[in-house]
Amino acid sequence: MVLLEFAMAPHGQGESLSAHVARILDVIDKSGITYQLTPMGTILEGEWEDVMGVVTACFKTLQVDCPRIGMNLKVDYRAGPESRLSSKIEKVQARLGRQLKH
Amino acid sequence: MVLLEFAMAPHGQGESLSAHVARILDVIDKSGITYQLTPMGTILEGEWEDVMGVVTACFKTLQVDCPRIGMNLKVDYRAGPESRLSSKIEKVQARLGRQLKH
Amino acid sequence: MVLLEFAMAPHGQGESLSAHVARILDVIDKSGITYQLTPMGTILEGEWEDVMGVVTACFKTLQVDCPRIGMNLKVDYRAGPESRLSSKIEKVQARLGRQLKH
Amino acid sequence: MVLLEFAMAPHGQGESLSAHVARILDVIDKSGITYQLTPMGTILEGEWEDVMGVVTACFKTLQVDCPRIGMNLKVDYRAGPESRLSSKIEKVQARLGRQLKH
Repeated sequence: MVLLEFAMAPHGQGESLSAHVARILDVIDKSGITYQLTPMGTILEGEWEDVMGVVTACFKTLQVDCPRIGMNLKVDYRAGPESRLSSKIEKVQARLGRQLKH
Repeated sequence: MVLLEFAMAPHGQGESLSAHVARILDVIDKSGITYQLTPMGTILEGEWEDVMGVVTACFKTLQVDCPRIGMNLKVDYRAGPESRLSSKIEKVQARLGRQLKH
Repeated sequence: MVLLEFAMAPHGQGESLSAHVARILDVIDKSGITYQLTPMGTILEGEWEDVMGVVTACFKTLQVDCPRIGMNLKVDYRAGPESRLSSKIEKVQARLGRQLKH
Repeated sequence: MVLLEFAMAPHGQGESLSAHVARILDVIDKSGITYQLTPMGTILEGEWEDVMGVVTACFKTLQVDCPRIGMNLKVDYRAGPESRLSSKIEKVQARLGRQLKH
């Protein structure tokens, strides 16, 4: 399973990016993929083709009217079918023996 | 205020990284900085010197016994004193007029 | 045209990553895509489908025998057919009126 | 020694970022640090304090008149005094037994 975090935004469209972020989140939310929004990006979980398919759909949505787009993306792939969206944080908390802010 | 997300890990110490992640989170949690753990990294919020000071403390902690360390970091700075740790997500939800998974 | 920089590597396969980097570069070099190797990653240039197709081919190559893979990727898209692989550096040098190390 | 690649830019200052990139490169070039410009960022090499000091100087330069700034940064640290700015590419070429574009 792939955990993929990304943030995508146009350049040159003004300082506030939230309208464009909302367009992208609308695509993600309607795609049916497992995801989690953070203050710095969106985390998708699924097979490579599925998460990359959603990233591509977001890019195509912005490309229609944005002449310049920047994106950052990172992937953490681990073989096997288990979700790690919640287990990664739990594992760290278990090691430390206390709750962390999440 | 700076929002800074980072992930830091040694290379060549085996496939499971959670012991090293726990050492780093211990440093962050005890630093007193405002932070939030996500499945893909840790988000810090504060002034440039404060958030970079915590990142440096994490690096120094690993450097003691890790000969190779990788780190990824991104910064979103906005002038002004308001916290955006929760407001960024709320703003996107308000625009879409519905709740998103976070 | 999309400029895409990425770095991909397995975790838990020892400290030296150059054998895996070589496997990935072999895929890139034989793909025929426009690319440039840097000390921190590889930059591809082309249409979205083409650059993402090469990244996917690299991932599939490692996935065969690597149970855990990390990747970082960034995209700078600009509408239009011109290559920016060399022009971006030239533009900055022209503004400063002097040569920079590249 | 730390290899650090970063890209820093204001948001909301129009589509062309080269004036701001030039201001940052001027700071880097005059700092005396070992660096290399790529089409997607700038790579610095040195001790942690030195490379982070230059990144901080760049941020302070933009902060004067940019109300919103984004930055991406990655670090590859390896214990020991040798430079890897050119050796990383040579190592991959040696393994493949042929020249790559760089």
